[in-house]
Amino acid sequence: MEVIVAQPLLKANEELARQNRNLLNRRGITTVNLISAPGAGKTTLLENTIGALKNMFSIGVVEGDIYTTFDSERLAGQGVAVVQINTYGGCHLDAQMVAQALERLPLDKLKLLFIENVGNLVCPAEFDLGENYKVAILSVSEGSDKPKKYPLVFQESEAVVLNKIDLLPYTDFDLAAAKEQLKEIKNNLVMFPLSAKTGEGMEAWVEWLKDKVSQTEKLSVTG
Amino acid sequence: MEVIVAQPLLKANEELARQNRNLLNRRGITTVNLISAPGAGKTTLLENTIGALKNMFSIGVVEGDIYTTFDSERLAGQGVAVVQINTYGGCHLDAQMVAQALERLPLDKLKLLFIENVGNLVCPAEFDLGENYKVAILSVSEGSDKPKKYPLVFQESEAVVLNKIDLLPYTDFDLAAAKEQLKEIKNNLVMFPLSAKTGEGMEAWVEWLKDKVSQTEKLSVTG
Repeated sequence: MEVIVAQPLLKANEELARQNRNLLNRRGITTVNLISAPGAGKTTLLENTIGALKNMFSIGVVEGDIYTTFDSERLAGQGVAVVQINTYGGCHLDAQMVAQALERLPLDKLKLLFIENVGNLVCPAEFDLGENYKVAILSVSEGSDKPKKYPLVFQESEAVVLNKIDLLPYTDFDLAAAKEQLKEIKNNLVMFPLSAKTGEGMEAWVEWLKDKVSQTEKLSVTG
Repeated sequence: MEVIVAQPLLKANEELARQNRNLLNRRGITTVNLISAPGAGKTTLLENTIGALKNMFSIGVVEGDIYTTFDSERLAGQGVAVVQINTYGGCHLDAQMVAQALERLPLDKLKLLFIENVGNLVCPAEFDLGENYKVAILSVSEGSDKPKKYPLVFQESEAVVLNKIDLLPYTDFDLAAAKEQLKEIKNNLVMFPLSAKTGEGMEAWVEWLKDKVSQTEKLSVTG
């Protein structure tokens, strides 16, 4: 049943994602799609990442939630352009929703765009939104067996943030085992163990993002 | 798009769920569908709940995972009947999967059946499996804003387990605020703050389950 239903939806999504990607690439915007389970700390990560980068270049956020505007309210205080999408029950963002959000963002000014997906480690991994990079966030309180149980999101991702390392002493999370599992799933996965709350380990993640933005800039110049 | 697609699937599921429920009710089995985000602690909760109840009556488990048999292996050590369902990418269990699992369980012996759903706080809430009760598990490391962000699963549930209270001192989780949010969503929701890891607070949850099993037994006698 599921395959018959999902194919035309995914095909239509692919075409819209391609259009989003063309639009964003033409503008020289680096786009990062953040995916995680509920409560892994996407919004706290965004708050602190934006804090570290917003004086360097202009940042936008597409904020996806089923209901509520809690997260976009938190980010609005950061002085960046934020558009909230509410899916009203929908378990993931799709390329059409993102296309509508892009119309409301000052694309001529932005260098970096974050898309915070709906909190769900399963469905968002199947939907291309037109981003350059998917980044999975896994918090250590979720347990180190999660990569093998939810492999698609990690296969699709360019990098993984291992968040809430401040909780490591109080959980059974095995950081080495999780890294091993992630390597088995995707050999060249970049990993950032950090605590968005305390700031520990944030530098490497912020440097990676700066590097991705300058790569896009070089492409725009030569392209 | 989503509405057009979802209706026939949900209708077919409803009929199969009704058949499962009839079968389970005829056998006098109390069935509990456990739903949570990945890593909220469903399997640890099950391990310790089964440990507390298995000498009183016979327990079965339908274990749902996208991939891997990690969880059913953990539970097999408990000496209860376990059937693993792998959805191979599917984001929730449906009534048809559960019907197939029921064929492999010793239903004439069971008094209590747990269904551990796929780790996902969104999609499983939409699918009736034929259970008597849905129970949502929310771990304190996920943050106290989750009830309002993911209301459906809590509306559909009879009870909520607030797990990992051993982590309360190390998180920003506001237990009183979360309880308030949950009451607003559903006034008569039963809540069990506990730590499946340390055992703190487990008694009230175990008593609630024993009570539900004896209610089913009374219904069987009078029915």
